[in-house]
Amino acid sequence: MSTMQYSPGLEGVIAADTQVSYLDVEHEEIVIRGYDLIELAQHLEYTDVAYLVIHGSLPTKEESKKFSTTLRNEAPLPEATYRLLELLPKSTEVMDALRTGISFLGGYEDAQVLNDTSISSNLAKGLRILAKAPGIASNAYRILHNQVPVHPDPKLDFTENFLRMILGETPDAEAREIFGYILTCYVEHELANSTFALRVIASTLADIYGSVVGAVASLKGPLHGGANEAYVRMLLEINAQGGPARAESYVMEKLQAKARIMGFGHRVYMRKYDPRAYLLRNYIPRLASRRPEGKDLHTIYQTVEQVMLREKGLYPNADSPIGLLFYLLGIPIPLFTPIFLCARIPGLVAHAVEQQADNRLYRPRVTYQGPRGLHLPS
Amino acid sequence: MSTMQYSPGLEGVIAADTQVSYLDVEHEEIVIRGYDLIELAQHLEYTDVAYLVIHGSLPTKEESKKFSTTLRNEAPLPEATYRLLELLPKSTEVMDALRTGISFLGGYEDAQVLNDTSISSNLAKGLRILAKAPGIASNAYRILHNQVPVHPDPKLDFTENFLRMILGETPDAEAREIFGYILTCYVEHELANSTFALRVIASTLADIYGSVVGAVASLKGPLHGGANEAYVRMLLEINAQGGPARAESYVMEKLQAKARIMGFGHRVYMRKYDPRAYLLRNYIPRLASRRPEGKDLHTIYQTVEQVMLREKGLYPNADSPIGLLFYLLGIPIPLFTPIFLCARIPGLVAHAVEQQADNRLYRPRVTYQGPRGLHLPS
Repeated sequence: MSTMQYSPGLEGVIAADTQVSYLDVEHEEIVIRGYDLIELAQHLEYTDVAYLVIHGSLPTKEESKKFSTTLRNEAPLPEATYRLLELLPKSTEVMDALRTGISFLGGYEDAQVLNDTSISSNLAKGLRILAKAPGIASNAYRILHNQVPVHPDPKLDFTENFLRMILGETPDAEAREIFGYILTCYVEHELANSTFALRVIASTLADIYGSVVGAVASLKGPLHGGANEAYVRMLLEINAQGGPARAESYVMEKLQAKARIMGFGHRVYMRKYDPRAYLLRNYIPRLASRRPEGKDLHTIYQTVEQVMLREKGLYPNADSPIGLLFYLLGIPIPLFTPIFLCARIPGLVAHAVEQQADNRLYRPRVTYQGPRGLHLPS
Repeated sequence: MSTMQYSPGLEGVIAADTQVSYLDVEHEEIVIRGYDLIELAQHLEYTDVAYLVIHGSLPTKEESKKFSTTLRNEAPLPEATYRLLELLPKSTEVMDALRTGISFLGGYEDAQVLNDTSISSNLAKGLRILAKAPGIASNAYRILHNQVPVHPDPKLDFTENFLRMILGETPDAEAREIFGYILTCYVEHELANSTFALRVIASTLADIYGSVVGAVASLKGPLHGGANEAYVRMLLEINAQGGPARAESYVMEKLQAKARIMGFGHRVYMRKYDPRAYLLRNYIPRLASRRPEGKDLHTIYQTVEQVMLREKGLYPNADSPIGLLFYLLGIPIPLFTPIFLCARIPGLVAHAVEQQADNRLYRPRVTYQGPRGLHLPS
């Protein structure tokens, strides 16, 4: 048996060399290909940041245009995809429909193309996944809720199209703008669990569809992407139980019962502000008037934040403001985590490409804690 | 940036405490819940070993019977599963169909049951996945190849039923026996990449279907489960190029071209014999007469083994004899890796249960090798 030190959850363990991104906790900066994510979110379109994440450098005007055109051209789903979504049991969760849908799409690639792990092949397939995922996510929700599908509109750009398929109508400029900021904030985040799962799978030289499918499965978990849904459900519960005046006692009771409050703290940031949460909370007041209960939810948001800081020393992570912003934008809650996944695809593609370009199979060991030397009764 | 040591592929890194299994390389033993896997394979039915892996102790006669009955009762697939398989593009690989199919099945669970990560709920769901996976794998192959599906027969046990759905007829006693040995040899193997991927995903408290789906994606990779298909394709290529007389020169040419020979060596066993390969190669002569080219393939098998040992000091791993045995049993090659996955499900279920019963989110870090301090042009 090994005497090596074991760090549960691989906390603090280095598991990859990467040129994609880095969480610089000391300087409170999310470094994306050398740039500060917050600077990117404030000044660039999501698709340009996606290009940067995937290709490693900012696009020229021409490259930007070509990238957007490719995403538009690749957005339509094979007709059978809609029939697949109709076949899903109505109890299927949207995140699981997205998992099944992306897995299904892999079959449309020629086997040789599918199993080609070269950089150029992975980039081409990755772009197809990025282009098609929003249509699967939004139409999975629609079809599971007996609504008419909304097909991608080839005249609209990626961000507008995505929000239009979700809402069922072309969004106004403010909604589109803030939705774009959120997509960028989700675009890449170093070795998050889903990205790590993707790299582990990709290291067998399995195809990129399968690697992304593994990331979808991971991101669903309530300790990961599922937190944005859980957070806003808590805000709504507090509001239903008495509105802003109930917020402090609600959190105190949860903490006394040692229940987990989603949307706070982060393995890496620990007791510092998540830079994405710091940026995005500024947009809550702008959207608060879009829902009758918007102002109350914002007050509850602030109270929960204050109590969590006072009692636990924990700051909100990105899932808190994003959960509330999505809700204020009129996005159905079961789509929050699927949108997160779609927004993260550029990061996933970049990591899959990087992993397979200089590969080493992930195969760690265990410390065995079970019995030894047992034999079958003779 | 961290100064911690980085081990590519997490080689030698401890990533979990486990009571499920342990590869004791020093004593050349695969320890399964305290027993030697080879002893289990030689004396127990696959389903009894599956019970041991999942529950941690050998079943009583009554428990064994109940376990087999549950597997039989849970084997039938929802009718829509066959329609899903019909919807797959014909270019879909069977392993990817299995990935899509297991992902699809998750939707049949009530959402509360699906997201319940308790031991009892995970065991119940895990058994349903184990019971249904063989029907998905074998019928995915059938439907993708325009053959009539073969539904599970509730009168047959798990092993016989599985082989019957593959072959389209009830297997003879010898085929069933050797198929059972192989299933047992694949049942569990410590922290293989697919098992590690499953534990990483399960650590977000994502549901067990998603965790298994991630493992399917991983096992497809040619550096993992895909090796059994790659190995037998090599044997057939050598045979087509000149039969046994071609074996030595074929391997030497591949080695000189620095091409990878699948089915040899193993990260953990390194330069020792994989105990499973040592057991299973004994059955090759018994099956060699089942195919006209069986004896030649066996000779090629032996020559490749000798040359690899002489030239590289590498022994065959389990994928070598299993690839050949599957072929001699008349199993279509595209089913080799899907069968491996189905046989591994008890191990996957045991690890998912163990991970979520005492959970810590997997979230390692990176060494960032990219640029810093870049800014957008103003």
